[in-house]
Amino acid sequence: MKKIIIFGSTGSIGKSALDVVRQSPGKFRILGLSANRDTKTLYKQIKEFSPKYVCVRDEKAAKAIKPDLEKVCKLFKGDKGLEEFSNLKSDISIMAISGISALKPLLVNIRYAKRIALANKESLVTAGKLIFNEARRFNTEIIPVDSEINALFQLVSINREDIKANNILRKIYLTASGGALADYKKKDLDKVSVKQVLNHPTWKMGRRITVDSATLMNKGFEVIESHYFFNIPYDKINIVIHKESVVHALVEYKDDTFFSCMYSPDMRMPISFALYYPERFDSDKKKSVISKGTSFLKNKNGFLCSFYPVNYSKYPILEIILQSAKKQDNSLIILNACDEIAIDYFLKKKIKFTDIHRVIKFMFNRYPAAKITDINDIFYWDNWGRIKTREYLNKL
Amino acid sequence: MKKIIIFGSTGSIGKSALDVVRQSPGKFRILGLSANRDTKTLYKQIKEFSPKYVCVRDEKAAKAIKPDLEKVCKLFKGDKGLEEFSNLKSDISIMAISGISALKPLLVNIRYAKRIALANKESLVTAGKLIFNEARRFNTEIIPVDSEINALFQLVSINREDIKANNILRKIYLTASGGALADYKKKDLDKVSVKQVLNHPTWKMGRRITVDSATLMNKGFEVIESHYFFNIPYDKINIVIHKESVVHALVEYKDDTFFSCMYSPDMRMPISFALYYPERFDSDKKKSVISKGTSFLKNKNGFLCSFYPVNYSKYPILEIILQSAKKQDNSLIILNACDEIAIDYFLKKKIKFTDIHRVIKFMFNRYPAAKITDINDIFYWDNWGRIKTREYLNKL
Repeated sequence: MKKIIIFGSTGSIGKSALDVVRQSPGKFRILGLSANRDTKTLYKQIKEFSPKYVCVRDEKAAKAIKPDLEKVCKLFKGDKGLEEFSNLKSDISIMAISGISALKPLLVNIRYAKRIALANKESLVTAGKLIFNEARRFNTEIIPVDSEINALFQLVSINREDIKANNILRKIYLTASGGALADYKKKDLDKVSVKQVLNHPTWKMGRRITVDSATLMNKGFEVIESHYFFNIPYDKINIVIHKESVVHALVEYKDDTFFSCMYSPDMRMPISFALYYPERFDSDKKKSVISKGTSFLKNKNGFLCSFYPVNYSKYPILEIILQSAKKQDNSLIILNACDEIAIDYFLKKKIKFTDIHRVIKFMFNRYPAAKITDINDIFYWDNWGRIKTREYLNKL
Repeated sequence: MKKIIIFGSTGSIGKSALDVVRQSPGKFRILGLSANRDTKTLYKQIKEFSPKYVCVRDEKAAKAIKPDLEKVCKLFKGDKGLEEFSNLKSDISIMAISGISALKPLLVNIRYAKRIALANKESLVTAGKLIFNEARRFNTEIIPVDSEINALFQLVSINREDIKANNILRKIYLTASGGALADYKKKDLDKVSVKQVLNHPTWKMGRRITVDSATLMNKGFEVIESHYFFNIPYDKINIVIHKESVVHALVEYKDDTFFSCMYSPDMRMPISFALYYPERFDSDKKKSVISKGTSFLKNKNGFLCSFYPVNYSKYPILEIILQSAKKQDNSLIILNACDEIAIDYFLKKKIKFTDIHRVIKFMFNRYPAAKITDINDIFYWDNWGRIKTREYLNKL
């Protein structure tokens, strides 16, 4: 059985990962689970999966842990505990911690895991080069869990040698549903509520990524992820609006042939891929609830698949993030921090939806450009971005 | 330069193949061209491509050939000439002769060609097993030119080892435009004219295959081609209606992930694949006219892709051919012959469109089942089918 560690087991991705494990009896063993502070969910998971190691990062939540838990597993507490937990060896580590908090445990655990199933975007956006350098150094396989990047991995990497040998890849296309506000007019974006923004038409996800989907910041992040994952220049990466979220990515060969990768919009699909690869989950075997994917070709009323160009004027944040990506400086770190803080303010109803763009634009026009040489630089500029964003937003 | 022989150079596929060669200077050399009787087109092709060997199969047309042609190339005439012509060695032979007439030259040339780019369907439908046995025996590569089968080859065969090793392929899907009559009601099919049937919405093809598209007989043939090409059981081969003819085939893996292969509906696409493989034609290099494929993702008005289940009651011939395919007897040979004759009668306005189904149904219900052991059996039952079909149709 393959030993699995889940970083961030109580979040949306963590839960989906456990569901894949649940539906794969005899295949995987949960070695470790880590959570931030949702100990209620964590207790249930411990009871069901009996991990040897458990980590609770939030100091307050860690202190409140029932003492008898220590009898069934080894407990790691707080930031220091998470660092120790990250030293555990695994066959597969699922990195599902959200935000830039994932970066430190990722960079430690990359040395001890045989494979990282990477669901966190912010680590790649802020430290893509560093992560892939470390993965090469420690011969660790990284498999993307993010559905678009996962689909690209399936299209590009599995027979990468063939593609490389003949230099046949011309372009890649990431699909975007357009998010919750795809059908809103630009002039109405000023007034949209938190509830409206969180009402994603096809994906159930965490709150920040759902807002990032509405601004297409999320798609900008995926462009950056693709760049690092597949070593593809930015001018070969395209975005296409595809509301149905069934086609996750396409590739274009130099003879104008296209290939697409499709599955139902359910995170258990890319997670099961990342866990089973190079094998595949068999959805026939045990009345799986993971995918209803086949239905889209069997629907008696048919199935329509649409592709539209991005209306960039409607998504100004996407334009900024794509400009920032090409700069190879500290701007991505600052914009990521800024976006996280701004979304937090928006979700707490302290600012308007369009203020997210306002502050990102402000920061991008004013930040002091600097080169990034190591991880300390990353945390410095992340912190700087947070402080300056708060300063700006508190004055609004 | 790779030496190319084209069997059937004056037909639709032959002309498209020469266009790919025309747009690939320095890459291919036309060694031989064969035609049935369209010497006018053949003369032009000889002038442009200077083949060393030329074959005219029709005895009458062969006799009428200008004597000075013998000075520029070696001429082969009639059926005997075609057999000799089939003994020529090539790097790639394009088999674009239509109908069962392709079978003999194919079975001879398979011994002398390094690669066969196979555009003819009838040879596989009537002698699929025999052809692949011979290809294995003489280590000859066969690459499908038929767009759906070509797309499947691109999806299945290129990393076949990966698929085989992990037994991950669950199903394949062939797309069907539905042909010229897709939007007609069943009750109106009795009255459709030749012109209406030949008015195919997406593909420009020969006349028989255009009629076969309207009855979906053509799709039945492709199911059989897929069966032999990829060694896939019939119950794993599905058909889905896709009017846009951009997605040519899909595959479904056992975890409910789908992959599709797309290109513009232009036969030069699969032909260029078959000629360049494992490389690819570069449509950027020289303002190629081969493909406008990229436009479908760049169209500013967007692009819609539809998938619908087949309404089998509207395509009764498809049901018959699929039943026949599973029988492993002489029925496919008889039905192919019957279909060819019936379409000839329909194109000459001697019978109604729905009479094609009538005679196919009659033949399928009455034919004397027999085992096929060699090529003589094939030609025997082909001839038998033609005679009996004419008898039936002449009485209508």
